[in-house]
Amino acid sequence: MTIDLSATQLGPTWGVSEREAGAALAKRLFVQLEEETRDSPGVTRTAFGEGERRAYAIIEEAGSALGLEQASDAAGNLFLKLPGLDRSKTILIGSHLDSVPHGGNYDGAAGVILGLAVQATFRAADRQPPIDLCTICLRAEESCWFPHSYIGSKTALGVLDPAVLEETRRTDTGNSLGDHMRMEGFDPEAVRRGASLIDQRQTVAYIEPHIEQGDVLLANDVPLGVVTGIRGSFRYREACCVGVYAHSGATPRDLRRDAVLATADLIMRTDRLWTDLLAEGHDVVITFGMLNTDHAQHSFSKVAGKTSFCVDVRSQSTATLSLVEAEFLRLSEAVAQDRGVRFALGARSGSMPAQMSPVLAGLLRGALRRSGLQQIDLASGAGHDAATFALAGIPTAMLFIRNRNGSHNPQEEMDFGDFVSALTAMTELMRTPAKSWPRNTL
Amino acid sequence: MTIDLSATQLGPTWGVSEREAGAALAKRLFVQLEEETRDSPGVTRTAFGEGERRAYAIIEEAGSALGLEQASDAAGNLFLKLPGLDRSKTILIGSHLDSVPHGGNYDGAAGVILGLAVQATFRAADRQPPIDLCTICLRAEESCWFPHSYIGSKTALGVLDPAVLEETRRTDTGNSLGDHMRMEGFDPEAVRRGASLIDQRQTVAYIEPHIEQGDVLLANDVPLGVVTGIRGSFRYREACCVGVYAHSGATPRDLRRDAVLATADLIMRTDRLWTDLLAEGHDVVITFGMLNTDHAQHSFSKVAGKTSFCVDVRSQSTATLSLVEAEFLRLSEAVAQDRGVRFALGARSGSMPAQMSPVLAGLLRGALRRSGLQQIDLASGAGHDAATFALAGIPTAMLFIRNRNGSHNPQEEMDFGDFVSALTAMTELMRTPAKSWPRNTL
Repeated sequence: MTIDLSATQLGPTWGVSEREAGAALAKRLFVQLEEETRDSPGVTRTAFGEGERRAYAIIEEAGSALGLEQASDAAGNLFLKLPGLDRSKTILIGSHLDSVPHGGNYDGAAGVILGLAVQATFRAADRQPPIDLCTICLRAEESCWFPHSYIGSKTALGVLDPAVLEETRRTDTGNSLGDHMRMEGFDPEAVRRGASLIDQRQTVAYIEPHIEQGDVLLANDVPLGVVTGIRGSFRYREACCVGVYAHSGATPRDLRRDAVLATADLIMRTDRLWTDLLAEGHDVVITFGMLNTDHAQHSFSKVAGKTSFCVDVRSQSTATLSLVEAEFLRLSEAVAQDRGVRFALGARSGSMPAQMSPVLAGLLRGALRRSGLQQIDLASGAGHDAATFALAGIPTAMLFIRNRNGSHNPQEEMDFGDFVSALTAMTELMRTPAKSWPRNTL
Repeated sequence: MTIDLSATQLGPTWGVSEREAGAALAKRLFVQLEEETRDSPGVTRTAFGEGERRAYAIIEEAGSALGLEQASDAAGNLFLKLPGLDRSKTILIGSHLDSVPHGGNYDGAAGVILGLAVQATFRAADRQPPIDLCTICLRAEESCWFPHSYIGSKTALGVLDPAVLEETRRTDTGNSLGDHMRMEGFDPEAVRRGASLIDQRQTVAYIEPHIEQGDVLLANDVPLGVVTGIRGSFRYREACCVGVYAHSGATPRDLRRDAVLATADLIMRTDRLWTDLLAEGHDVVITFGMLNTDHAQHSFSKVAGKTSFCVDVRSQSTATLSLVEAEFLRLSEAVAQDRGVRFALGARSGSMPAQMSPVLAGLLRGALRRSGLQQIDLASGAGHDAATFALAGIPTAMLFIRNRNGSHNPQEEMDFGDFVSALTAMTELMRTPAKSWPRNTL
């Protein structure tokens, strides 16, 4: 593998061999991770389980080879630090190492490996970064294992609700999160007390590089994107529409209470609302899915008396979420009235939007520009650990890397050239002088 | 049970006891049928199987008790004839005796029992009808048993496609229709040759009384309805919409090919078409159902890449069906274009509309008027054996009896008073002089 990193990208003082060192390490780590966590098709890195454990071992070994300062917190989150010239400030770069069952190799891992690759580039150049540069490996981000968001970043920051340790059980074993932590050799009691290795006053940035899970970069034909915010959401996962079953041939239109028609009506009215909101400049995505008539009661030649469906609304703006929810509830009442049905929306869940730091985003854009790389701004529609850091008040940034076929599946397709572009830009960013990093205002 | 049948309803020459005789027989037969074919909840009268066999035995016994001329054709359809004063013309009154699994007691059976009750009324009055009056009991109308329409009426008229005998298998046993006929002691070879006991030149009417399967009579608060026609149909039972799966949070609106949204759009556009057609005076009902996203591939937080659904369009007019189908295909292409999806409509099936005889409908309205009974005209949205008789060129009528909760379920709810109203009107109709019945023009 030969990767062309022209000298201009990293400035005059860096040679070609240093740039190749970081990329070569990354390539080796991607291959090793894929081989050692393979679960055909794809990879499986069970949170607080076998695949995640192997992934941590691989990353730890790479950290040792680079001579990084290593530390593991009470929940097993791993910190690999390259000391900077000024040791009073720390930048965290990282993501998570677990995957969904039969997932792709890049979701999560690309962020961790990028941190190590930046550190390897500095090592190869025999340079120290201006401030401490720490790769952070987080646990249990994929909520398919433990149905609770951001366990790794919450434990790293010491803010996990202690009740989660007992109440949240792994979906495959039924054992609690605390039990699984204990089985892996970690310390749930310390987690309960809020133990953390992160000095929030000293941490000037958490930066999470991640493959994009949508097709926005592909559609815009650019390799990298600077994330403006992580969309929050409101969701009705088990909504239903209740009408009246009737004979499809024998029931005239005005006697029907057709649940399929009413549901379609609600979907289309909400779609018009969405179009209007986008035209007004709102950031919002609206998705209806899991749409089903009732197999037990419904059949061909029956007007449907019931549908079930879910709705998922996401936005970077809390105000927009509130607006959409009020309007959606109004629309569902209007459709119910017009069509003689009833909507039972069921339990509501949701999450807060998280804003990325505009100062960090600016620094990142500058590094991309100096590296000669094109980028666009975009929102993250999926949740990431970055949301926990941002909501904890730590300046946070995300760098999205172009990727085909989404994530959570073996067809994830990040071009390695795009990863190297991200490495180039992140290395450039890490050369930012100590004084330019925003002080944490905590 | 005492039923008040005032003398004016049947004219001056008939006493109260005669009217009670018919109603009492009907009541007894409904009870006996329910008891002997009970399969809780509801009744099961398997076509060419146990429940249907018991039902035939009950009706045959009742026919013997009334001293009717009995005959059974090659397929086991039963004819119970009360000789008229003029034996050159025959009126058939009847319906089918099978039911769906766990069905209701009235669907089909009410038509047969009404025929016997009219005959019992004549017997009790010691009168002969002007022309031959024959109760006809048809087999295998419910296509849940053998997936082929109108086996009883087609065999009764000798017009069943012989291939159906081998190719059509009973859904519960997997044995062919011919095998099941043979097991019941009938003669599939004669069926194949087109044997029939019906002299089509002599048959001046086939009249099928049936519970209404919709709520039109209930909504109009009238006990009886004169059917103007049996709606034909076109159907796509296994249609699907193919879009592209995507991340619900990370995929902006303009990059989506959302199968749920596209399907809702098609449903709503077709609903607007329906509204417009009704405003223009067309007879048509349109039903979308069996609407599902794909459990294997779809989940919460995914834009749906596929839906499956069925569409069922029915009308009394062949021209309207053609118009709706052309328009529906145009709409599905337009939605596909607008939303970047593809509709695969799958196999098309359908049936021809059947017009009821306007002359017979007029005679029936006259009998209802003379009996002091309110009625409205309405279409039959469900298929009935009457369609086979009408399409064979025999003057055909249907009388709908008010019923709650549709049919094909144990909650069928026909008020016995409404049945007696139907008995009164049908008895009055059967007193129509021989010369007033339309000559069959075959």
